[in-house]
Amino acid sequence: MLPKSRLKQIAQLSQKKFRDQTGCFVVEGHKSVHDFFEQGWEWTELLSTEPQDSLPTTVVSTAEMIRMTQFKTASPMLGVFKKRKPIALPTNESVLVLDQISDPGNLGTILRQASWFGIQHVLCSEQSVDCYNSKVVQASMGGMARVYCHYGNLVAFLSGTQLPVFGAGLSGKSIYEAEVKGPAVYAFGSESHGFRKEVASTIQQWITIPAKETDSVESLNIASASAIVLSHCYAGN
Amino acid sequence: MLPKSRLKQIAQLSQKKFRDQTGCFVVEGHKSVHDFFEQGWEWTELLSTEPQDSLPTTVVSTAEMIRMTQFKTASPMLGVFKKRKPIALPTNESVLVLDQISDPGNLGTILRQASWFGIQHVLCSEQSVDCYNSKVVQASMGGMARVYCHYGNLVAFLSGTQLPVFGAGLSGKSIYEAEVKGPAVYAFGSESHGFRKEVASTIQQWITIPAKETDSVESLNIASASAIVLSHCYAGN
Repeated sequence: MLPKSRLKQIAQLSQKKFRDQTGCFVVEGHKSVHDFFEQGWEWTELLSTEPQDSLPTTVVSTAEMIRMTQFKTASPMLGVFKKRKPIALPTNESVLVLDQISDPGNLGTILRQASWFGIQHVLCSEQSVDCYNSKVVQASMGGMARVYCHYGNLVAFLSGTQLPVFGAGLSGKSIYEAEVKGPAVYAFGSESHGFRKEVASTIQQWITIPAKETDSVESLNIASASAIVLSHCYAGN
Repeated sequence: MLPKSRLKQIAQLSQKKFRDQTGCFVVEGHKSVHDFFEQGWEWTELLSTEPQDSLPTTVVSTAEMIRMTQFKTASPMLGVFKKRKPIALPTNESVLVLDQISDPGNLGTILRQASWFGIQHVLCSEQSVDCYNSKVVQASMGGMARVYCHYGNLVAFLSGTQLPVFGAGLSGKSIYEAEVKGPAVYAFGSESHGFRKEVASTIQQWITIPAKETDSVESLNIASASAIVLSHCYAGN
């Protein structure tokens, strides 16, 4: 059993300001909690409704889980983990850059892709959705536990990097013709507004995923586009 | 102004049983309503909070929109459209097959991809999420207006088709080595359970998107996988 005050504090971690104040965030679900634990993330609470062999959890009631959960349905396992201290971005490894991404499901999906394709670093602009948001953590399916999600000034990074900078847009060189060798930076604009002007001006080469027909939908979802670009330009070569 | 009884009927179209009873569904948002209208879908109501030049809408109040919306925030435009009558699946065009897909966002995203890559037909197993669900319509961003979404017996279709049948799985031939020419059937299992056994037995060739590292996440999201498979195997050749 947890003190009521602690239950309330954990529930409040659904809000970014409390995550920022405490430096902690919540992970829900058996698989995700194991992922963060096994990847060596520091934790303050590991809680479950049944005793566990695989994790040193404290047993709490389902009613307590319901008080803490950030989802419609409480999971039988919940962990409170500490946010990681920021580290420097690498200079010679591929980086995925996201300008003002706002949808937590999209960011989580992209972190999952980054992990799948072995990209260790994702850089989001400062106004992007918080990667410690529980919907990001959930959608990443362990990706958030494995990939460094940085926040920072995109223009400073993109104009300073020694790596080639590819930007995904509605026009540019077809990805089926683009040649990418070695580490590179892959940049994507926001779901609704694309790139901000100052960020767009740092793109060295525009790449695009050509539509097959003229009367198609106007664009692909950002996470569909990133999947295709990473697969074609990064994994496929 | 609409009669209260009609407002209620439209609001009830959030439930599949009412969509099935009436043969109607709701589309919300300026862009999506235009998409269905311009693609020639029959409609019973086109409603907006302001008079429109581009569509023959009836003006309703924001309060009425709030009563009808299926989302947290009501849009200034809403249309009630008629579901399409089922048509036969083509015999010599590419088809995307989804076994028990359950997440409306995923189905919508896949319909958007299908439209982008010029695939006109998506076949879902009967237990899949309803494509007339408003979250599917929204996530498809016009894809649902352009692509035929069929429901039917996958085993019957997959074992009867003359086209090559590729199934996406965690093992199989790497998509970077698979050679696909001409129309084909691309099949994907459900988000959490993969393919049902009887469906898996009809797959002619398993294809896979290889992970770059052994300690990556366990899998890709189904809509990420479909984006990559369609791009590599279908659009890229």
